[in-house]
Amino acid sequence: MPKPQPIEHADASPQVRAVFDDIKTTRNVKDVNNFWKYLANDPVTLKRTWESLKEVMAPGTLDPLVKEMVYLAVSVSNGCGYCIASHGAAASKAGMTQAQFGELMAVVGMANETNRLVNGYRVPIDPAFET
Amino acid sequence: MPKPQPIEHADASPQVRAVFDDIKTTRNVKDVNNFWKYLANDPVTLKRTWESLKEVMAPGTLDPLVKEMVYLAVSVSNGCGYCIASHGAAASKAGMTQAQFGELMAVVGMANETNRLVNGYRVPIDPAFET
Amino acid sequence: MPKPQPIEHADASPQVRAVFDDIKTTRNVKDVNNFWKYLANDPVTLKRTWESLKEVMAPGTLDPLVKEMVYLAVSVSNGCGYCIASHGAAASKAGMTQAQFGELMAVVGMANETNRLVNGYRVPIDPAFET
Amino acid sequence: MPKPQPIEHADASPQVRAVFDDIKTTRNVKDVNNFWKYLANDPVTLKRTWESLKEVMAPGTLDPLVKEMVYLAVSVSNGCGYCIASHGAAASKAGMTQAQFGELMAVVGMANETNRLVNGYRVPIDPAFET
Amino acid sequence: MPKPQPIEHADASPQVRAVFDDIKTTRNVKDVNNFWKYLANDPVTLKRTWESLKEVMAPGTLDPLVKEMVYLAVSVSNGCGYCIASHGAAASKAGMTQAQFGELMAVVGMANETNRLVNGYRVPIDPAFET
Amino acid sequence: MPKPQPIEHADASPQVRAVFDDIKTTRNVKDVNNFWKYLANDPVTLKRTWESLKEVMAPGTLDPLVKEMVYLAVSVSNGCGYCIASHGAAASKAGMTQAQFGELMAVVGMANETNRLVNGYRVPIDPAFET
Repeated sequence: MPKPQPIEHADASPQVRAVFDDIKTTRNVKDVNNFWKYLANDPVTLKRTWESLKEVMAPGTLDPLVKEMVYLAVSVSNGCGYCIASHGAAASKAGMTQAQFGELMAVVGMANETNRLVNGYRVPIDPAFET
Repeated sequence: MPKPQPIEHADASPQVRAVFDDIKTTRNVKDVNNFWKYLANDPVTLKRTWESLKEVMAPGTLDPLVKEMVYLAVSVSNGCGYCIASHGAAASKAGMTQAQFGELMAVVGMANETNRLVNGYRVPIDPAFET
Repeated sequence: MPKPQPIEHADASPQVRAVFDDIKTTRNVKDVNNFWKYLANDPVTLKRTWESLKEVMAPGTLDPLVKEMVYLAVSVSNGCGYCIASHGAAASKAGMTQAQFGELMAVVGMANETNRLVNGYRVPIDPAFET
Repeated sequence: MPKPQPIEHADASPQVRAVFDDIKTTRNVKDVNNFWKYLANDPVTLKRTWESLKEVMAPGTLDPLVKEMVYLAVSVSNGCGYCIASHGAAASKAGMTQAQFGELMAVVGMANETNRLVNGYRVPIDPAFET
Repeated sequence: MPKPQPIEHADASPQVRAVFDDIKTTRNVKDVNNFWKYLANDPVTLKRTWESLKEVMAPGTLDPLVKEMVYLAVSVSNGCGYCIASHGAAASKAGMTQAQFGELMAVVGMANETNRLVNGYRVPIDPAFET
Repeated sequence: MPKPQPIEHADASPQVRAVFDDIKTTRNVKDVNNFWKYLANDPVTLKRTWESLKEVMAPGTLDPLVKEMVYLAVSVSNGCGYCIASHGAAASKAGMTQAQFGELMAVVGMANETNRLVNGYRVPIDPAFET
């Protein structure tokens, strides 16, 4: 198996094209991102991942901007460069300002810091948090 | 150095008490959580961490509920049990409903899944995300 | 200490050359990968790591392809770009097909997703799993 | 929102029961694990996660034992206690012997070690792995 | 919000310049690193992070070289490329030799390996470590 | 395969006993920690891990206390509860004071915070760090 290569719309099977077309329609974009072009190497995972993502990111009790910011926060915490770039763009498109990005990063940074202080000091859960 | 032990208000130095008192006043609570009682073993870190957290979590361009949910999302992603319990409680206090928690967890789960798909397929960043 | 640089066979000490030669013989390759050339900056760690790896990856009750796929899965989960590239190549050489790679990535993705759902919902271990 | 609580079959909505029943039938078990009982707090995520997992873990080009071992390997690498217990049990049920478990852990350990050596020595990807 | 861009001294607000100047004076350098130029997009986080870092990394009961090596060790474990480069340089400047770097990496590697062996074997804490 | 169980000296094979005895002699302790008793389920991994650890943690250009503190720092960063307890005890035995522990935790916390700020701001490596 060589290094994964992207699959463009013109070279895609009907099954893959159907997913690409649904992404383009749902997001109102002219082409899909690299993520989908690479995932197209496995049409079953492509379809499942897109349908899951569409369900998870749909408007619900959390608004789409909040969801994109949470997605970005997790990606930053995990250090996934592609995901930071793509979900940073998505969050911006959904309305995230530079000031909001700054506050988001500050929270992500603090959470990673205090998570480790908790580990190191072996802090037991307060009984009040257990109910 | 034995296992870290919590420091209660009654046994605390004036420096530590001042921080405890500020936490109680700011949050309008009767006692501080275990996190602060353990961190009190290092009064310098206690003071710096509290002042940083107070600044970071203050209302800004992101509302406090969003900040608490992001804090919770990162803690869940990192697997910090204490932090999940304490920031879950804080998010609830700030108004998070069970439905919002469910959507938050769904986003955290998907982000962790797609972060790894990106890694595995070695997806290069789209030029559009680089500007 | 400047940025680490690779050590080529021609410039290597006899101690390092002996390890390089054993890698080349064991794997039937003409040159060692960059990993070993960089690790050669610390001959003691080079030797120990190679001997450990040789022992761990040798055929046993798990066949070598399964071992390479597990190595790749962990590297993908950790986001180590070099390791994904090198163990992806090793898994391919050991026979991994593109379809197997796709299924492997799907499992790695799901595991990372459900690991976080478990964290967030604070799921206690079923008694049946404790025996 | 209080601490998440499990939802038992007797107290579940028809939508949740349908998922529980499908899990029990598919796996031929009398009751579902705690993971599903907690996830039932969000019926949409419960349904999507179960359907995704059923698809991902179905026999394909990788046999079910290999998939369970990969799931276990990722969970061990991430340090998810519940997931280690539940997928350890699932792998055993699928036929994993103690010797295979030992070899699996050895690979997971080595991968985590060499992933960090690669990071620290800043090893560039060999051109041969880029094609 | 476009991709974050660095802010140079000449274009910085007085608030940001004051931090830049303090960094340059404290470290006796002609210019600040990229980290600070990017963080300058959020002057509040820039100021807080610099003041925290200055306090944490100041000489104390641990000498500055040990602190830099610990910072590097954590960055290597997390796989943060920029941080490995910048704290590798800082550790070298503080006196880390190549042999010390090699031993440091060996410890980081072993810790990551045994951390996972512990997870996989589900090792309970010895009572002696609980006091 | 049931849940892993510890193997005590009295029940151990000669091969395992030899490792246990070497640990006890080297460390001058009456019994080995749980880590070794669980690892004894795989005598090959037990032997390799002990010999690797003995080599890595031996006095070298870094003194043993520094090595134990780095081990602890990585374990705290990874959130391995057992490892934090055991290497916290080992660091204390090697002379770590409470003040040193406090400074160590502060560095680990800051590193985890700034690692994420770097990720989020997508900071490129300064040319000066590349040589």
